[in-house]
Amino acid sequence: MIAKTEASDIRFRPHFKTHQNKKIAHLFREKGVDAITVSSLKMAEFFAADGWSDITIAIPTDLNELAGIEALARKISLTLIVDNAAHLEGLKKLKTSVNVMIEVDNGYGRSGIFVRKHRQIFDLIRQIKEETGLRFSGLLTHFGNTYKATSREEIKEIALDSLRDFSTLRNYLEPLTGEKIFISAGDTPSASVLDRFEGIDELRPGNFVFYDLMQLGAGSCDLSQIAVVMRCPVISKNAARKQLIIHGGAVHFSKESIVFEGAESYGRAVDVSSENFKLLSANLISLSQEHGIVQCNAREFERFRIGDYIHIIPVHSCLTANLMKEDLIFVDKRK
Amino acid sequence: MIAKTEASDIRFRPHFKTHQNKKIAHLFREKGVDAITVSSLKMAEFFAADGWSDITIAIPTDLNELAGIEALARKISLTLIVDNAAHLEGLKKLKTSVNVMIEVDNGYGRSGIFVRKHRQIFDLIRQIKEETGLRFSGLLTHFGNTYKATSREEIKEIALDSLRDFSTLRNYLEPLTGEKIFISAGDTPSASVLDRFEGIDELRPGNFVFYDLMQLGAGSCDLSQIAVVMRCPVISKNAARKQLIIHGGAVHFSKESIVFEGAESYGRAVDVSSENFKLLSANLISLSQEHGIVQCNAREFERFRIGDYIHIIPVHSCLTANLMKEDLIFVDKRK
Repeated sequence: MIAKTEASDIRFRPHFKTHQNKKIAHLFREKGVDAITVSSLKMAEFFAADGWSDITIAIPTDLNELAGIEALARKISLTLIVDNAAHLEGLKKLKTSVNVMIEVDNGYGRSGIFVRKHRQIFDLIRQIKEETGLRFSGLLTHFGNTYKATSREEIKEIALDSLRDFSTLRNYLEPLTGEKIFISAGDTPSASVLDRFEGIDELRPGNFVFYDLMQLGAGSCDLSQIAVVMRCPVISKNAARKQLIIHGGAVHFSKESIVFEGAESYGRAVDVSSENFKLLSANLISLSQEHGIVQCNAREFERFRIGDYIHIIPVHSCLTANLMKEDLIFVDKRK
Repeated sequence: MIAKTEASDIRFRPHFKTHQNKKIAHLFREKGVDAITVSSLKMAEFFAADGWSDITIAIPTDLNELAGIEALARKISLTLIVDNAAHLEGLKKLKTSVNVMIEVDNGYGRSGIFVRKHRQIFDLIRQIKEETGLRFSGLLTHFGNTYKATSREEIKEIALDSLRDFSTLRNYLEPLTGEKIFISAGDTPSASVLDRFEGIDELRPGNFVFYDLMQLGAGSCDLSQIAVVMRCPVISKNAARKQLIIHGGAVHFSKESIVFEGAESYGRAVDVSSENFKLLSANLISLSQEHGIVQCNAREFERFRIGDYIHIIPVHSCLTANLMKEDLIFVDKRK
């Protein structure tokens, strides 16, 4: 990802919400990364305390947190997100200067002003510049609809359509504002599938640090790139149903499911004994709070005994890693 | 729940996995509760450190945790769960005596030996008694299929059918073993709907301490009995879609949805200004990692401004509270 962003001559600001782990953060630092993205003030404080000094909080600003924002902005270069004039009313009260970006929605439909509402976006830029002491620092977007794609082609199509909309928006804004408009994007699927990033200035993928079953299903990655498994003890077996019962539930995996290889899945078991993982015919089909049920074929069922560990690729590594946080066991395979 | 178990003259052993919170645990202690249920060794250690001395770990034993089990069993009265001879092979190695219960499955289909496999259950009892130094302490079951019920009648039907099966099982086992067989049950839905508990000796509900949207939907509780909300800041608004964007995502609620009042829901907003909550026309329809989208009618949309808090009943309070744990804000309304 670093090589890609260097080739496109854009800033790399990885999202640390996926791992929330200092050891993994240090790997990025070793590679020269010095600017990061997080998705809450709490997470920003966590990483600032570990020496990160350029942090974007990529979620619309919570106006109840002005005191914490103020304290953090005194220590580091902090970038906040707004998408509404109401945010400016709150942020005007800050005594320390912060960077402010406007969130723009590519059509994903979560937060942000829709990318084709040119006038509305311009008006908010004007308000930031004329009515506040805030530093306007550009536009931020998240092509979240790429996560629902089911092929590399579909991911690429969503990303390229969105980039065209942003190019049109930039052509509208730059003459009116008289300045270059900085654009930050960066969902993992399009960051993985595209080789060059035309029309953006910063890339913020997060999930790629681990990838997961969802990204494998969408074609963002292949099996050899997945870098996270949940290691769960087998605590019971049901021979009639060919099921393993594991200590691994919604409090470990979170409760996200996808259809993978035609079956609903909360995670998929893999053999981790070789350098690259190998998919097993053992699918996590159900989760309660602490228990999981793994449906096996006859061979995999026999392979595992009570007390053995089974390794499972989570559907959504961000949610799984959030539940584990600093308890992640870190295996450094670099030779 | 205490009054109900006293009326049926059975032991009350509430499940603490729902709250995992010492302050709430102390409320139970004030009411005379001295025996509890948890669902992991880690949780048992957490509560043992806070003075609880009679704990059942209601999940099949993880044979990788023998050292921790040994250490804990030296300090408190510890009850473990088995459903397979392989568990006995592991537990035989313990040097400290523990209580062992056999998990029996009422047809829910998770762990445990199916309740109609009389001979298999008897054989495991015999093995415990003859081949190990473990103290056999009865049968443990969880009528987990009541959680999928959609009415009080359906909950009652599942519970009464299951109780009949356990009565048949007991009539089979008691003459063979020459002893009274202790039976522990206790899902929240049937514990809520039944008034008397015939044929069991112990009740272990957990979720009832808070209840949640799932229980409200199933008829286990009414709105006035729900004792947990997530308090989320409104961080953006979308006027065209009448949606509030909140800082409240899968890392706060976990990702469980149900159909409630005909619509898929990850949580439902309530007015908490009066003693009893009042449902609002504001439904949490989508969760990403940190963001939630609340679909409102026109009136509720106008009511909330950016920076306001909105209060949302979670779908599954056990998973939500697990994500918050000791960060729960505790409001004691007792007069």
